[in-house]
Amino acid sequence: MHNRRDFIKNTSLMMGGALVLPSLDLNIFRRSGTTMPSSKLKLTFKPYTLELRHVFTIAASSRSTTPVMLTEIEFNGIKGYGEASMPPYLGESQETAAAFLSRVNLEQFDNPFELEKILAYVDSVAPGNPAAKASVDIALHDLTGKIIGQPWYKIWGFEKEKTPVTTFTIGIDTPEVVRQKVKEAEEYKVLKIKLGRDTDREMVEAIRSVTDKPLTGDANQGWKDKQQALDMIHWLHERGMVMVEQPMSKEDPESNGWISERSPVPVIADEACQRLPDVIKAKGYYTGINIKLMKSTGMREAHKMLTLARALGMKVMLGCMTETSCAISAAAQLSPMVDFADLDGALLISNDIFEGTTVVDGKVVLADGPGIGVKKIK
Amino acid sequence: MHNRRDFIKNTSLMMGGALVLPSLDLNIFRRSGTTMPSSKLKLTFKPYTLELRHVFTIAASSRSTTPVMLTEIEFNGIKGYGEASMPPYLGESQETAAAFLSRVNLEQFDNPFELEKILAYVDSVAPGNPAAKASVDIALHDLTGKIIGQPWYKIWGFEKEKTPVTTFTIGIDTPEVVRQKVKEAEEYKVLKIKLGRDTDREMVEAIRSVTDKPLTGDANQGWKDKQQALDMIHWLHERGMVMVEQPMSKEDPESNGWISERSPVPVIADEACQRLPDVIKAKGYYTGINIKLMKSTGMREAHKMLTLARALGMKVMLGCMTETSCAISAAAQLSPMVDFADLDGALLISNDIFEGTTVVDGKVVLADGPGIGVKKIK
Repeated sequence: MHNRRDFIKNTSLMMGGALVLPSLDLNIFRRSGTTMPSSKLKLTFKPYTLELRHVFTIAASSRSTTPVMLTEIEFNGIKGYGEASMPPYLGESQETAAAFLSRVNLEQFDNPFELEKILAYVDSVAPGNPAAKASVDIALHDLTGKIIGQPWYKIWGFEKEKTPVTTFTIGIDTPEVVRQKVKEAEEYKVLKIKLGRDTDREMVEAIRSVTDKPLTGDANQGWKDKQQALDMIHWLHERGMVMVEQPMSKEDPESNGWISERSPVPVIADEACQRLPDVIKAKGYYTGINIKLMKSTGMREAHKMLTLARALGMKVMLGCMTETSCAISAAAQLSPMVDFADLDGALLISNDIFEGTTVVDGKVVLADGPGIGVKKIK
Repeated sequence: MHNRRDFIKNTSLMMGGALVLPSLDLNIFRRSGTTMPSSKLKLTFKPYTLELRHVFTIAASSRSTTPVMLTEIEFNGIKGYGEASMPPYLGESQETAAAFLSRVNLEQFDNPFELEKILAYVDSVAPGNPAAKASVDIALHDLTGKIIGQPWYKIWGFEKEKTPVTTFTIGIDTPEVVRQKVKEAEEYKVLKIKLGRDTDREMVEAIRSVTDKPLTGDANQGWKDKQQALDMIHWLHERGMVMVEQPMSKEDPESNGWISERSPVPVIADEACQRLPDVIKAKGYYTGINIKLMKSTGMREAHKMLTLARALGMKVMLGCMTETSCAISAAAQLSPMVDFADLDGALLISNDIFEGTTVVDGKVVLADGPGIGVKKIK
C-alpha cells in the first residue's frame, strides 16, 4: 500500500548537491485530497524521428533517419524519461510501439520501486516488442533513481571511473570517404567496422593507411562459410582487430562455436543473444555477449544478463542502436562492468533532445544526475 | 572523489516517513576542516556469544551457544551494522574472524557505494573466511542503504508483501519432547526437520501425531545410499514433506543428481552450494540451491546467486545460521524472491541485540527502516 508517509519519504530529492525540498508544495496535504498529485504511475509517449548525421549502411540496408518513441512516467510530480529506438530491420515501429504502450496500464501500480513486479507485468502484455518494453523500463529506472536521488551505476555498486572507451563505427564506403571518416573520428580510441562484404579488405586497408588504432569487427551474420570466416578473422587480427561480433547466422550456433574455439580474438554473440535465456544458450558457442537495452527489454534484464554472463565467465559488450542521449545514458549505467562498449548512438544523430552521458577523449563519461542522469534540452 | 557536495547529498536521511535532516550539524563545514567527520570508511568489530534457547542438535553435534562477530562500518557519522555467525563445525571462529578483519583496511576507500570494488578487495584479503567477509558486506549494505534512505529489498526492486513463510526447525529429540516442541511452534506454517538418523521415522510419526503442517527435511549429507535415500524421500513425501536439502555428500553430485531426477519433491543443494560458481556446478544435479549469507560472503554475492539460479530455472531457498536479527534482517531483504525460507535463526536465541525483520504468523515481515532495517536495542 502506498500511503502519505511513503510519499513524503519518496519525493524528497537531493539535487545539484544541495538539499532541495520536493518541487511539490508539502502543504498540499493540508488541503483537500482532490488536489493531491496522483500517486499512481502515469505513462505517456510520443513518436520522434532521429536525423542521422551520415547515411548509415550495414550489410542489409541504408537509411538516414531512425524512428524512436519517447516515454515519460510520472509519479507524484517526478518524471522519468525513457526511449525505444526502432531501426526498421528489427521489426518494431512507432505504430507497433504505440499499440503496445497503449495496452500498458501502469495506473494499477502505486509503488514504482516494485520493479520486478511491474516489469514482469509489462513483459506479459504481449510477446516481442523489446524496444517498447525497454522504453518503459528506462523511464521507470530514471524515475526511481530520481526518487532515491542516486544514479543507477551507483545503486548497482559500480565505479564511475571504470567506464570503458567506446568504439566509433566507420560506415561502409569508398576508400577515399573511409579515410576521411577515420580522420573525423580522431577522438575515438577504437574504431568499429561492419564486415561481410566483398570490399572488407579494401576498407580495412584504407583505414590502416591513415591510423593504427585497434578495430572491432561486426559481421552481422554476414559470413557464410566457417573456414573462410576464420581465415578472415585471422587476416583482420593481424591488422589489429581485437574482437568480432556475430560471424555467422544466429541459427548456426555450431559454426559460430567452431569459429570461437579457434579465433585469436573474442567472438561476441549479438543477433544470437537477445534476452536473459539466450545468455545460457550462448555459453560454449561464443566468447561473450553483446547486451543492448533495445534487445533485452531494458536496464533490469540487461543487469541480470551482465551478472549471468560474468558468472559464466563470458566477456560482455554493451551496444546500442542510433538513440538519443536518453537510452544511451541508460545503457551507460552498466558500462563500468563491461569489456567492450559501442555507445556511439547519440553521436551519430543531429537532433538529440537530451544531455547526459558524454564521450570525452573516446571514453564514456557518466553524468552525475540521479536515475539515468539526463536532462531534456528541447 | 568524495567531496563536500556529495557528502551533503549522501547524508540526508528520510527516517520513519518524515523528512529528517542528517543527525550531523551541517554547520560543521563552516568550521575548521579538522572537525569534519572522517570521509573514509572505518571498520570496527567485537565478539559476541549467542545463547541458544534450546540445545541444538544436528547429525554431527550438539551445542548451546554460537560465537558471532559484530561489525560496524562508519562513514561521515553514519553507522552500518554487520555480523558473522560461526557455528564451530563450519571452521570459522571469533579468532579467525578477528585475524581476518584486522587485515581488512577499508580506510583506503572514500566512496561506500563502490560495492563491487570494495567487496572484491575484501574477498582478496585471504581465501575462505566467508562469514567474516559477510560481516563486512552486511555492514556496507546497511551503511549505503541508510545513506540512500532506502531498504535493500526496495533498492533491489522486490515486493515487500511477497515475503515467504519461514520454516521453524524441530530439533532431534524423543517423541514426547518433539510433540511438545511442535505445540510450541504453533505460529509457524512449515516445520523443518533434520534427517539422517535411525530415529527419522519415529520423529516424523511423533510430529504427525500432533499436526499435519507441511514439513521440509534436511539430511545434511547424512544419507549414504542413493536408493535408500530415495525410498526415504518417498516415505517422507507421503507424510507431507515438500522439499529436502542435501540428501548425500556434496562430494557425490552424481548420486544427488540421481535422487533429484527421481524425487517427488525439490532437492536443494546446501553444503554443495557455497558461492556463485557453485550455482552453475549445482545445475543438473539439484533442483535448487540454499543461499546463506554466511556461505556466500554476504548480500551482494547472494543477490547474484539468486539472479543466476533464477536464470538457470532453479528453485531458491534462503537459509541462515543461528544469528541475531542483524544478519537475519540482511538475508530477509532477498526473501521476497525465494521459494523456501529458513530464517528462524534469531528466534532460536535468547540474547538478540537487534530489532528488524520479524516473523508474524509464520511469515517473514520486513522492517521499514533503510539499509537492512535494524535498530540496535542493547
